[in-house]
Amino acid sequence: MSNAMFDVIKGDLEQLEEQLIEAVSSPEDDLVTEVGTHLVTSGGKRIRPALCLLAAHGGASFSLARTLPLATALELIHTASLVHDDVIDKADTRRGAPTANAKWDNKIAILAGDYIFARAFRLVAENSYGDHVANRLAQLVGNLSVGEIIQDKQMYKAERDEKDYYDRIQKKTADFLEICCELGALVGGMEPQEAKCLAEYGHCIGMAFQITDDLLDILETSEQIGKPAGNDIRQGIVTLPVLRALSVSPAHDELLAIVTDPGMTDEMAARALAIVRATDGADFAKAKADAYLARAKEVLPAALSAEIRDAYVQVADFIGQRDF
Amino acid sequence: MSNAMFDVIKGDLEQLEEQLIEAVSSPEDDLVTEVGTHLVTSGGKRIRPALCLLAAHGGASFSLARTLPLATALELIHTASLVHDDVIDKADTRRGAPTANAKWDNKIAILAGDYIFARAFRLVAENSYGDHVANRLAQLVGNLSVGEIIQDKQMYKAERDEKDYYDRIQKKTADFLEICCELGALVGGMEPQEAKCLAEYGHCIGMAFQITDDLLDILETSEQIGKPAGNDIRQGIVTLPVLRALSVSPAHDELLAIVTDPGMTDEMAARALAIVRATDGADFAKAKADAYLARAKEVLPAALSAEIRDAYVQVADFIGQRDF
Repeated sequence: MSNAMFDVIKGDLEQLEEQLIEAVSSPEDDLVTEVGTHLVTSGGKRIRPALCLLAAHGGASFSLARTLPLATALELIHTASLVHDDVIDKADTRRGAPTANAKWDNKIAILAGDYIFARAFRLVAENSYGDHVANRLAQLVGNLSVGEIIQDKQMYKAERDEKDYYDRIQKKTADFLEICCELGALVGGMEPQEAKCLAEYGHCIGMAFQITDDLLDILETSEQIGKPAGNDIRQGIVTLPVLRALSVSPAHDELLAIVTDPGMTDEMAARALAIVRATDGADFAKAKADAYLARAKEVLPAALSAEIRDAYVQVADFIGQRDF
Repeated sequence: MSNAMFDVIKGDLEQLEEQLIEAVSSPEDDLVTEVGTHLVTSGGKRIRPALCLLAAHGGASFSLARTLPLATALELIHTASLVHDDVIDKADTRRGAPTANAKWDNKIAILAGDYIFARAFRLVAENSYGDHVANRLAQLVGNLSVGEIIQDKQMYKAERDEKDYYDRIQKKTADFLEICCELGALVGGMEPQEAKCLAEYGHCIGMAFQITDDLLDILETSEQIGKPAGNDIRQGIVTLPVLRALSVSPAHDELLAIVTDPGMTDEMAARALAIVRATDGADFAKAKADAYLARAKEVLPAALSAEIRDAYVQVADFIGQRDF
């Protein structure tokens, strides 16, 4: 993520990096520190803590010292969740760096994920954010897991409609970005009505973020995204462009047969990708993402300072032209 | 665990079972509910929530409704930790029931473990136990992970002394039982001085519990413990009887060569087991466990009612003669 859009919180994000490393450092064991440091310094975009910090800046009683531990906890939860995802997916690299399961092993990766989740909850308790914040974060972690279990069950299934898709990406991505805005606003002392609007902003960019991510899997070449194009199709994950293609393609039956076949070969996946690309599936998804981004900008609270508002608009624009 | 010793909290434990099932039930997904229910109904001994409930009963302001969610959270943390352990150990069964990774797969097991950890932290936040309780539980989860990572690093290593062994089993087991007593006492409104004594009781029975567990691996037959005798040795885990044998056995060099060899065969493990059995290693460990249990009974607060005190004494006695 281009850091330009975060100029207004550049100093904050530098301190965040320090707090992340401090949080994962164990006084008791060097290996724990080594694994944790590798994980938090392997190139995250920090979009979640940035949303939290921007929201806090928009409140009447902003304090960086008060906000940073929360922003750190949010990034730790994201990190822990990715560590476990990589074990599950047997992934070797993430963002160009080796995953914990590849660099060490599944045991270390699973335990390091648990450790990092626990560190997030400890930061929240140590800094006395109160039960509401702790409860929201625990709900978030629970929902991330449930969302993945639901995605797993829906693999190679195509009878579900758009609503199921939106429910799933909300759990997977949008709820998280919403909570970052919501809790940042709360800790910064933003008026409840404004905080609510900002939470909706978070929801909308989260939905757009995941739709765009799913879209790239269809649109881009393998080189551009660093994994095979059509990877989602290949793994049995039916995304919005595919759902659209299923309803409009003349090759509907062939596409349905492929995406619901757990025995799908690479060739079949490539054929499905070609069928989807021959429809307006990608344009349809892009239009949905754009609508979410337009809505996100619309609901930004009027009371935000120009600086903070600009940063939020830039985040939305960035997601729309996402090319990472 | 024989339930007789828990007569005084029999009704509480029945309600605990209901709360456990309720806690892991997801309104959003049947599979999450199914996995969670399987995990919490597969025969746990409930020693952690029992210690918490007994401690709360010992306080001046005991309320079952107030204590049950905490006791439930403690058992959920234990459950989640075992689920992840079983993935790590590729275990097929636990307490005679199939593990989540065997019955479903690693993906479901890892995510279900995360979900159950999150449910524990949500219970604590929803019931407003406050930041101290949340902090202690987050520390506990972190320490359980660190303890396992340390154990992993110490595998096939024998240069460490008894102190390292005690440090490790404290993190693995004793801290957990201590926290159950400590937090139960806190929520029940026990006097701080008495609560401190009860926490020490928890520490002592936890140490005895793990030493006894390690001892059974040496003493019992494979049939008695439901896994190969000498399993710890085979896995490179150097326990107290082995450490003792290393310092007293005439076959010291042979034993050292075997237990530090990652290429150890079943035959070599059997030979190491025979060497340990020929020493006073098991008696030495048993004496240590007994000393911890004696200390546990000694520190029980004088103000406890006869009923609660008896239950605590029975727990200690049970651990000493543990045969499950």
